[in-house]
Amino acid sequence: MSTNILRTADGWWVVRDARAVRIETKAVTTAELLADRAAVEEAAVGPGTPVAGLVALSPVTTPCRVVAQMVNYRSHARDSGFTGDIPAAFFRKASGSVSGPGDSIVRPTHVQFLDYEVELGLVMGAPLPVGTVVEERDLPTYVAGLVITNDVSAREVQLTKTQFYESKSYPTFTPTGPYLALLEPDDFAHFLDLRLKLSVNGDLRQDRTLADMIVRPAQALTLLTRFQTLAPGDLLLTGTPGGTALKAPPKPVEKIGSLLPPAVKWKAFFKSQARNPHYLRKGDVVTATIATPDGRIDLGEQRTPVTDSN
Amino acid sequence: MSTNILRTADGWWVVRDARAVRIETKAVTTAELLADRAAVEEAAVGPGTPVAGLVALSPVTTPCRVVAQMVNYRSHARDSGFTGDIPAAFFRKASGSVSGPGDSIVRPTHVQFLDYEVELGLVMGAPLPVGTVVEERDLPTYVAGLVITNDVSAREVQLTKTQFYESKSYPTFTPTGPYLALLEPDDFAHFLDLRLKLSVNGDLRQDRTLADMIVRPAQALTLLTRFQTLAPGDLLLTGTPGGTALKAPPKPVEKIGSLLPPAVKWKAFFKSQARNPHYLRKGDVVTATIATPDGRIDLGEQRTPVTDSN
Repeated sequence: MSTNILRTADGWWVVRDARAVRIETKAVTTAELLADRAAVEEAAVGPGTPVAGLVALSPVTTPCRVVAQMVNYRSHARDSGFTGDIPAAFFRKASGSVSGPGDSIVRPTHVQFLDYEVELGLVMGAPLPVGTVVEERDLPTYVAGLVITNDVSAREVQLTKTQFYESKSYPTFTPTGPYLALLEPDDFAHFLDLRLKLSVNGDLRQDRTLADMIVRPAQALTLLTRFQTLAPGDLLLTGTPGGTALKAPPKPVEKIGSLLPPAVKWKAFFKSQARNPHYLRKGDVVTATIATPDGRIDLGEQRTPVTDSN
Repeated sequence: MSTNILRTADGWWVVRDARAVRIETKAVTTAELLADRAAVEEAAVGPGTPVAGLVALSPVTTPCRVVAQMVNYRSHARDSGFTGDIPAAFFRKASGSVSGPGDSIVRPTHVQFLDYEVELGLVMGAPLPVGTVVEERDLPTYVAGLVITNDVSAREVQLTKTQFYESKSYPTFTPTGPYLALLEPDDFAHFLDLRLKLSVNGDLRQDRTLADMIVRPAQALTLLTRFQTLAPGDLLLTGTPGGTALKAPPKPVEKIGSLLPPAVKWKAFFKSQARNPHYLRKGDVVTATIATPDGRIDLGEQRTPVTDSN
């Protein structure tokens, strides 16, 4: 049974049902909290106060490493026009993009095609030096817990620049939380039952379980530590299922597009996207949940309005 | 006139001609050294010991942010098959890839197409919050100094995965140093005279001045801080000139290639690359220099042998 942790401006809390118990700890960073499990366990038995009165911050503190998996759900691969083999690839997000689970997503003025991607976030609990091999049975050693993340994406920046880093790194482009679910070893057997859902203004856009995932967490960590060391408190985003606003153009169009100079191709593509009503705009509210059907693991609800930058 | 700083296992040194003077400082990180300019200035007048007896480490300490500019020299754009507009894009490298200026570049066993890219590295000297606008005249405020870097690249990983992060982040894939050249404000007017040279086994492969650069440092920092905050000691790699082992295939071949499924296309491309003798292999020695012709700015010589991982 997992333990849900909430962070507020003045500390850390254990949440059970609708009540929160303060954790008596000096921890400031997520890594420090993970090192103080005794304090967490002590708080788990207290009476508590109503959680509704608390303002949740991201339970992942920054700076930390934020790494993300490219195309990692079969349904999203279809949306993105992938056929055949899909490379298992990673990219970085600036950890300055991490924001709270109720904070606004701020659209930069130069971005028209603002998209959402609900993703399961893995929070590291132990150092992973380069060359670490992680088997399924090792996951409890390395993964301390789970969070809801939204890998917000500026599509015209992402596709024209080819490297995903900028398009997904603007401030507020990684809403995280509300809960950091600390896992017990037997929780890991229930990963594939986790269901990711994302709605915009109540309209359900993404809805899949981890069974649709291509490269699963143990293999992902093994591939990532071929080149990147990780430390406690670092965050791995594991990819998004189908249902984003962005859909790849139909195959014949794409093949012709591949023969055009890039500037001409993208101009035509985004002209067609301008008629797509699914991109985020000011006033939209994005809600996201990740949970198992039995509630054994339940990462809470993220609720982020969309605004324009000034 | 710039001041060359060297780092060894037991401290920091000012180097002038062939002699090094120890800097009396408690600084451990590059950011801490940059904050202790008084100690640097004091060391600049000492008698010193022969620099030849010191083993140089990277003058940029890690962890730090390592960001790199994609295609940023006209000559490299031509090598890479770019025609028309080139997107000003950034990617991250793991700072675990930073190694010393005499350390070996270690080829991972799964990498066949190991390539070199000499690049001018800018070391930040002040915080750059998101939204900072950097004009040419502001460079002395934000850029503390310069280093030689080699953006070593595993080409088959880079091109098949599309995201550059992994291919350029393996340990030893960012040889850095020997010198961190701390700049005086009037040094910045000499940037375009800086000449980058890289040789493999004495064979000159890259040789260009910054006049060939597309997005220059002030504009690059402005574009980068649209989304990424930077701090003292962070490192920006500013792109490589032409002359890498990788050359894009001729245009007609590439157009046909774009119609093939990716796996087939890359298989054919790397089959052709297997006959290219310029990729790095065990026993090669890579030397790199960056300097103005008058020696006003001279970042020393980087000399890195190539080995295989065990």
